[in-house]
Amino acid sequence: MLQNIFLSNYELEEALNIYFEKLGNLKFQTETIKTWDANGRVAVNAEFAIISSPHYNSSAVDGIAVKSEKTSLASDRNHVFLTEDEDYIVVDTGDPIPREFDCVIMVEDLIKVNENKVEIYQSAVPWQNIRLLGEDIVENQLIVTSKHKIRPMDIGALIAGGINELEVFKRPRVGIIPTGTEIVEPGTKLKVGDIIDFNSRTFAAQVSDWGGIPKRYDIVKDDYEKIKKAVLKANNENDIVLINAGSSAGREDFTSSVISEVGELIIHGIAIKPGKPVMMGVVDNKPIIGIPGFPVSAYFVMEAIAKKLILRYQGIEAEEQIKVDARLTRRCMSSLKYLEFVRVKLGYIGESYVATPLTRGAGVTMSLVNADGVLEINQSIEGIEAGTTVKVKLLSDENKIKNTLICIGSHDPIIDIASDIMHKRNKKYYLSSSNVGSTGGLMALKTGETHVAPTHLLDMETGEYNTSYLKKYLPDKKICLVKCVKRIQGFMVKKGNPKNIKTFDDIAKEDVKFVNRQRGSGTRLLLDYNLNKLKIDPKIINGYYREEFTHLAVAAAVEAGDVDAGLGVYSAAAMMGLEFIPVCNEEYDLAIPEEFMDMEIVEEFIETLKSKEFKEKLDELGGYDYSDTGRIIYQRG
Amino acid sequence: MLQNIFLSNYELEEALNIYFEKLGNLKFQTETIKTWDANGRVAVNAEFAIISSPHYNSSAVDGIAVKSEKTSLASDRNHVFLTEDEDYIVVDTGDPIPREFDCVIMVEDLIKVNENKVEIYQSAVPWQNIRLLGEDIVENQLIVTSKHKIRPMDIGALIAGGINELEVFKRPRVGIIPTGTEIVEPGTKLKVGDIIDFNSRTFAAQVSDWGGIPKRYDIVKDDYEKIKKAVLKANNENDIVLINAGSSAGREDFTSSVISEVGELIIHGIAIKPGKPVMMGVVDNKPIIGIPGFPVSAYFVMEAIAKKLILRYQGIEAEEQIKVDARLTRRCMSSLKYLEFVRVKLGYIGESYVATPLTRGAGVTMSLVNADGVLEINQSIEGIEAGTTVKVKLLSDENKIKNTLICIGSHDPIIDIASDIMHKRNKKYYLSSSNVGSTGGLMALKTGETHVAPTHLLDMETGEYNTSYLKKYLPDKKICLVKCVKRIQGFMVKKGNPKNIKTFDDIAKEDVKFVNRQRGSGTRLLLDYNLNKLKIDPKIINGYYREEFTHLAVAAAVEAGDVDAGLGVYSAAAMMGLEFIPVCNEEYDLAIPEEFMDMEIVEEFIETLKSKEFKEKLDELGGYDYSDTGRIIYQRG
Repeated sequence: MLQNIFLSNYELEEALNIYFEKLGNLKFQTETIKTWDANGRVAVNAEFAIISSPHYNSSAVDGIAVKSEKTSLASDRNHVFLTEDEDYIVVDTGDPIPREFDCVIMVEDLIKVNENKVEIYQSAVPWQNIRLLGEDIVENQLIVTSKHKIRPMDIGALIAGGINELEVFKRPRVGIIPTGTEIVEPGTKLKVGDIIDFNSRTFAAQVSDWGGIPKRYDIVKDDYEKIKKAVLKANNENDIVLINAGSSAGREDFTSSVISEVGELIIHGIAIKPGKPVMMGVVDNKPIIGIPGFPVSAYFVMEAIAKKLILRYQGIEAEEQIKVDARLTRRCMSSLKYLEFVRVKLGYIGESYVATPLTRGAGVTMSLVNADGVLEINQSIEGIEAGTTVKVKLLSDENKIKNTLICIGSHDPIIDIASDIMHKRNKKYYLSSSNVGSTGGLMALKTGETHVAPTHLLDMETGEYNTSYLKKYLPDKKICLVKCVKRIQGFMVKKGNPKNIKTFDDIAKEDVKFVNRQRGSGTRLLLDYNLNKLKIDPKIINGYYREEFTHLAVAAAVEAGDVDAGLGVYSAAAMMGLEFIPVCNEEYDLAIPEEFMDMEIVEEFIETLKSKEFKEKLDELGGYDYSDTGRIIYQRG
Repeated sequence: MLQNIFLSNYELEEALNIYFEKLGNLKFQTETIKTWDANGRVAVNAEFAIISSPHYNSSAVDGIAVKSEKTSLASDRNHVFLTEDEDYIVVDTGDPIPREFDCVIMVEDLIKVNENKVEIYQSAVPWQNIRLLGEDIVENQLIVTSKHKIRPMDIGALIAGGINELEVFKRPRVGIIPTGTEIVEPGTKLKVGDIIDFNSRTFAAQVSDWGGIPKRYDIVKDDYEKIKKAVLKANNENDIVLINAGSSAGREDFTSSVISEVGELIIHGIAIKPGKPVMMGVVDNKPIIGIPGFPVSAYFVMEAIAKKLILRYQGIEAEEQIKVDARLTRRCMSSLKYLEFVRVKLGYIGESYVATPLTRGAGVTMSLVNADGVLEINQSIEGIEAGTTVKVKLLSDENKIKNTLICIGSHDPIIDIASDIMHKRNKKYYLSSSNVGSTGGLMALKTGETHVAPTHLLDMETGEYNTSYLKKYLPDKKICLVKCVKRIQGFMVKKGNPKNIKTFDDIAKEDVKFVNRQRGSGTRLLLDYNLNKLKIDPKIINGYYREEFTHLAVAAAVEAGDVDAGLGVYSAAAMMGLEFIPVCNEEYDLAIPEEFMDMEIVEEFIETLKSKEFKEKLDELGGYDYSDTGRIIYQRG
């Protein structure tokens, strides 16, 4: 059975307006709690002090309370003597000032004569060092406005003002139902076709972050009656229900029918990308949201819709995230049909932000983990040109971004390892790497989106590495080439090498399934260089057009038995327990603009590469030669 | 008994280094928890995927899996027919792709012929719409670095990568001991000399915000043995102990002796202001911090020391707060002896931030509530000139600051009320008011630190209000004067008017205690105008030099029986249940630069003043005439 469900295509704002209007008659609940339990909660009403603080005139210092008249003649040349009980009383900070005194002299300004006599050498002015009644808070003074989110200092001020109980908005209870016959709990032994449920766990954490109380239910199979039962139960036990998956137009889609039967499906389909097939319904006067199954779609639907709903329950109308200005490094096309959420990597390069779009695949969870921000491209815009300054919503900490070394280019697992060691050496610094292949890395240097570009590009004519490409791609830039490692490239095959692969001729055999790397990667060039030398037509290689983006991904395809061979580095093969047939040694170097060489973070990175700890790790992995690591091997400009 | 304890004066960084070195051999504990419970926790190790996601080749869309060869001839003019099971199988998003197929055609691109036959009109390329094994996450791929603070999306990616348990740093347990014989629980019926404990509640909220688990103990009296017992108990039950008060040099100071007896007092006194008399000690290898009693000092000691300690326990070395650039509106002097934390009010005025220092009193809790940020002035600096651009750490939400109308000038309780109504009318907007008196308000307009300045300045010569002062103080600025209200000023006295005060002559009587307003306030000018007219020498007024900053503070002083009379507005008297003897009507107007009159937030504010709701509130309070409210009564420039 093939279905064709046509979804609606409301604009996000329009959909929210329709939905919130429908939900308008919902009564958001409040509760009265102790003020000291109210951190992070939102006050329903403006709160005015009911007592003054201090509620009496008190000493602001440690010293003596006196009548100022009695001190008026005191000076450096005319010390005045005062007697306890007769002229003064001793007061500590916070002690009440009896009505007969009008000022306090600090202990530091007293010369002690004996146990109950002091000498002073300057006069006191009336009301000095006295905290007058209400100096901090006066009865009836406004302490917090209505809808204020309570912070620790507000708790102090409220209690000081005599407000020990506070009416706050209730945190909404949010039921989360994962659905899908193919969905299994984490830890289940996986069969082909199984998908681990992690969305519901991400949702629960998001709900908590936004102040809701999440309750996750067991996974429900794709069965109309079971889904209906789960929806009714969750609806009964919570203020809001989130139901995951089953909201695309697939064959096992029961959610929309269930919502329509037990309540009302208000919206099905919104013009956002990712996230289009969202559902917004009402069951028994409570909202229910059908969240798409793809993790990235789910994330943005949670942000764009569930978050607003959960905040509304707590009296928070709009909580905008901080946006920063960033220069877009690449042209970013967008559909006129959708409001698009583009994940971007931010780099702080040369005192300003640059934003590089990440993959847009709705299933790529790691694109969310690796993103530093989100660029929203409006429906009315077809695309944004490279170089444009755009507003980016932050997903990472701003200080962290500013202390992050950007490393875009060829992939090697040792970059991840260097990242971890550098951070351990200097807690302040982070490294962020993106794998776009060697050529992509040099392009990233050109557009100014990276500090460092790892590269291993073999010159087809000279057989030399990297330097000719620097001249070709970056003719106007002053670049240093720093040696990272020499590494071994070779064929990765299953243990025992069942197809007996030894040479490039072998991978061109008809019964051998190969997996390639993407165009522009050094490894792809290495393959093409050798095929060319041997005059092998790439087209005859079974799998030449199947492209992976990392060594590890190639190794994983071999390990899964999906293909017979791939080309890659020794360490990736070793990690996956594969057999490795060496093909050649290659130069894996780091291209770094000269202007960045003096940056503390770049120096720290190079020191990391030279460190004993890093070299030990390389030994552990095997297949690396680090004799020149960290040395500048070429400099131009 | 007068004490003179001399405290040390370590610089903050130096003190922290000494202290952390001493604590260096502490073993910060870790625990292994379920990944889905790890939101906000910090990972001890870098985490690498142990399974790939997807762990098989799967369909990225709903459609049919086919062999691409079979589609190669399809075109608009040459539709190709495919048969289920023979040529294709139906797949949903996420379904596995059997090895014999190499691509998927989307359901949207199919023409259905019958239940098991479809028609296609374009060829498919190999691997289209297939999510390859490991497309999202490849086995051995780095998911989060060590010391990474887990976010909701990280939880999803970790579970997808097969990591269901995570080693994280333990949240430290933090014991909080309030001490002081004068300290009482909130809700206690207050006697003179009692101080409500609210610091411990603020600390607990701070500790929670920083990831610690707070445990508050009962208040301990100033009794050496009792404090010792409490310290030992809390030390035994927690990882960190915070002990409040008893850390100044006052007479009831036992904390330092207790720490020295049961452990080691490492530091006593740091060169920060406020917060100097802090103690840093170690008992049984666990840190104990003695926090000063003044709430603002306490707050900054918590921020500067306790926060760093609590974060360290969780593997977070440095978590810098976001800073913004702001123009300082007034000269800000600072001591060379201290690192000073100056609370500032931020305004977003004319597209940039301006920062205005607030009161520096260590006891003024409201200065923390009202502050939007903190300016740190280094020990090496004697002061910062007005107009300098400074870095300010944010305490409030940036978006909130940008949507806040700044209102600096004369105080009237109705400004607080307008603030609340405006926010209810338009959730986006906030109002922040500072009471610096009418003259102060006009000065704030001059330096560009406010949008609106409420003013009621009586011209001593003409008897007219406000306009002559605008000419005098702001000769070059285009200013609109918007009518707020006419209001009644008068004497506030106790019920029954025991001293029978009716005129300005009466307050000059010897047995009458008066309380004045600060210089520059309109009410002070009103007093001086009348004294001058009646030729009364201010000096003979008992209390002329005692200054309060708000009407409410004056009313509170009268209500407490502290003084017999004060001058102020009717509403303040009514709120405090005082009797009110009218003296005159005055014009309470709003001076607003012409350039701000078109701002949406200013328009919203003026609409609020004109609103029915606001007028109803004025009627409720009494003493206001709102017949012209919201009208521009004067315009210059």
